[in-house]
Amino acid sequence: MKSFVNYTEESDFSIHNVPFGVAVFNQEYIACATRIGDMVLDLATLYDYGFLENIDGLNENVFEAYTLNEFIELGKPVTNAVREKIQQLLLEGSLLSKDEKSIEDCFFDLDQVKMMMPVHVPNYTDFYSSIEHATNVGSMFRDPANALLPNWKHIPVGYHGRASSIVISGTDLHRPKGQTKPADMDKPIFGPSKQLDFELEMGFIINQNTEMGTSISVGDAEDSIFGMVLFNDWSARDIQAWEYVPLGPFLAKNFGSTVSPWVVTLEALAPFRASSPKQDPEVLDYLKFEGNKNFDINLEVFLQPENGEENLIAQSNFKYMYWNMAQQLAHHTINGCNVEVGDLYASGTISGKEKDSYGSMLELTWRGTNPIQLKDGSERKFIDDNDTIIMRGFAEKDGLRVGFGEVSGKILAAKP
Amino acid sequence: MKSFVNYTEESDFSIHNVPFGVAVFNQEYIACATRIGDMVLDLATLYDYGFLENIDGLNENVFEAYTLNEFIELGKPVTNAVREKIQQLLLEGSLLSKDEKSIEDCFFDLDQVKMMMPVHVPNYTDFYSSIEHATNVGSMFRDPANALLPNWKHIPVGYHGRASSIVISGTDLHRPKGQTKPADMDKPIFGPSKQLDFELEMGFIINQNTEMGTSISVGDAEDSIFGMVLFNDWSARDIQAWEYVPLGPFLAKNFGSTVSPWVVTLEALAPFRASSPKQDPEVLDYLKFEGNKNFDINLEVFLQPENGEENLIAQSNFKYMYWNMAQQLAHHTINGCNVEVGDLYASGTISGKEKDSYGSMLELTWRGTNPIQLKDGSERKFIDDNDTIIMRGFAEKDGLRVGFGEVSGKILAAKP
Repeated sequence: MKSFVNYTEESDFSIHNVPFGVAVFNQEYIACATRIGDMVLDLATLYDYGFLENIDGLNENVFEAYTLNEFIELGKPVTNAVREKIQQLLLEGSLLSKDEKSIEDCFFDLDQVKMMMPVHVPNYTDFYSSIEHATNVGSMFRDPANALLPNWKHIPVGYHGRASSIVISGTDLHRPKGQTKPADMDKPIFGPSKQLDFELEMGFIINQNTEMGTSISVGDAEDSIFGMVLFNDWSARDIQAWEYVPLGPFLAKNFGSTVSPWVVTLEALAPFRASSPKQDPEVLDYLKFEGNKNFDINLEVFLQPENGEENLIAQSNFKYMYWNMAQQLAHHTINGCNVEVGDLYASGTISGKEKDSYGSMLELTWRGTNPIQLKDGSERKFIDDNDTIIMRGFAEKDGLRVGFGEVSGKILAAKP
Repeated sequence: MKSFVNYTEESDFSIHNVPFGVAVFNQEYIACATRIGDMVLDLATLYDYGFLENIDGLNENVFEAYTLNEFIELGKPVTNAVREKIQQLLLEGSLLSKDEKSIEDCFFDLDQVKMMMPVHVPNYTDFYSSIEHATNVGSMFRDPANALLPNWKHIPVGYHGRASSIVISGTDLHRPKGQTKPADMDKPIFGPSKQLDFELEMGFIINQNTEMGTSISVGDAEDSIFGMVLFNDWSARDIQAWEYVPLGPFLAKNFGSTVSPWVVTLEALAPFRASSPKQDPEVLDYLKFEGNKNFDINLEVFLQPENGEENLIAQSNFKYMYWNMAQQLAHHTINGCNVEVGDLYASGTISGKEKDSYGSMLELTWRGTNPIQLKDGSERKFIDDNDTIIMRGFAEKDGLRVGFGEVSGKILAAKP
């Protein structure tokens, strides 16, 4: 497939991708969008110009919206047909390629565009599905000999997170303040977190509202998943350590989480399906799955000090996940919990086996005992004020590249 | 104050109350409503008839809505003025009392009305703020000698719950299925929960959207609280025991939570303000408060077997709470977490010191070791299929009564 829009081989946004997002065009007009190379395509205008006609189930301009929710809710038959139609329109020689006025009105350069939250997120859950991450954390905070808790290999452990504070890539966050209890003190103290961390995660987005009391089976789960994003689950380790027993992480996380702007569909990721780590012991029936339910997605984390260079500090891969998305969704709904369009389910920190593949500062510096050396000669145990954390993710195979771009966020000093 | 609408002394919905809810009238028309005695008053029509004119900030019919969110977002100056105006209209001799057509069109008998969820809940958090409850649970599951964890007296411990599965009183719920690990087995098993429980709670509802990075102080917190509801935080204890370490309760809770239909304002509850238990050790500055921030609200739990009588199984009081709502909200936002209109913050199980004041079956039967005897001769360790749990709450002082009515829910058998 060759597009009439030019892009380099290294572009995450090849014609094989066709992701979906929401953009502010020229600081004045908001609509759903897709991206190819470094061009952003306004789907609402594309619809108005008649290019998305004759798609069964697409009966109004759902792209004229501040979120993708209405579009996503149309379901896979419609959203897949739209994606395929856009792909055809982007090909060399297409009707669109020959229509100069439409090209001028629908395509925008990246610098004319600001991305917004792609979806309204009614509910957000964070899983804990990387065996390497869970093992590392268990070794540090509990017992290296019994790092994994007894339930870990039987349940894709997860917890509810805060939906209100999920923000789009590029949003600055202030360092959170809160209670911590240093080991050498009798009482807790109050102040800015001293152990601010990122967590390298991915998330998937739901395309349907289900009834309470119903469940989504492992086999059906992927039909309910519109697509995926990169996700930075910012974590204040010192606040977390003091607060999390017995009810889990709370203020250590809910000051902010950051998502990447482009939702990449499961269909675009299909060529990169991969097998999962073997699950031993065998899981209960409702968690058994067939086929390749994992995806080979390269992940990178960069730390960029104020006015400094980017430093690659971790390289991981989504395929390391012990529990896959279908299992997570089946587990989440096995008790009858309903899901809603736009729900975001995050993977948990994605760590690999090697030390440079760990998905958090906590693991990379082993709780601060082994600081990261940066190119500018400074070192980091955790994130400093004015550091920017950038995560990138892409899949690549046989000359095909489909990626997510980046999720980026800068940590400002705590508010006075 | 005497109303032209008659009601008994035992009514929760005296003229001193004027709660807010959302009702379906005659199975066809939905609007915001209030209640006096056993009459429900359609506020959208009352507005259309011109009875709510000349209230600063009330410029459109926000009562013509499926939720209270738009009304609540107007803020205390407006919502208080509306409440006081309604109170005047309900007095003997008011303009409304003399207008037969308006009375006929605006007032409905209870049996013509079905209540809906009063608010759309964007975010739901559950606290754990009763010292008696936390002590009981700690004694049963951990160590009676050190029942309270080290953080408990320093932090109003809380966790994020599931917003999607919060339902209105009267909604039947199926017994959840899930993974449990009986003590006498090597591996987890799958099936319907065998330890289904209620939790007697109250919740408060937020009236503003705040910016991320800002905090609500203890002193300002009550300005952000529109009102309160009764709340049943259904809990599957066997699922909870297996899943909750280390990230907290998840599937044990998110199959459903139930709220009462009428939101009682903090202003209606003002005469029932009460002191709190002394907090020792002293809390950190951001949690210090002045004045009476607790409320004396009598709480009752009834268990009604299928076709049977109601059995009073617990009597508690909201005033037992160790942490008050202002502290909960200040803590929740101290890290910059933003809140949204309609957010629901639940208290956690409200237990008292006496055995008959415990707010859950877990505590009342001490983990099933001391079953509850019912009037029909049967007994309960936990909730049986087709049992209905009814919670009632009211404040009473010097002949004044302001109450919540009830929150009720029936547990159906697990789906096959």
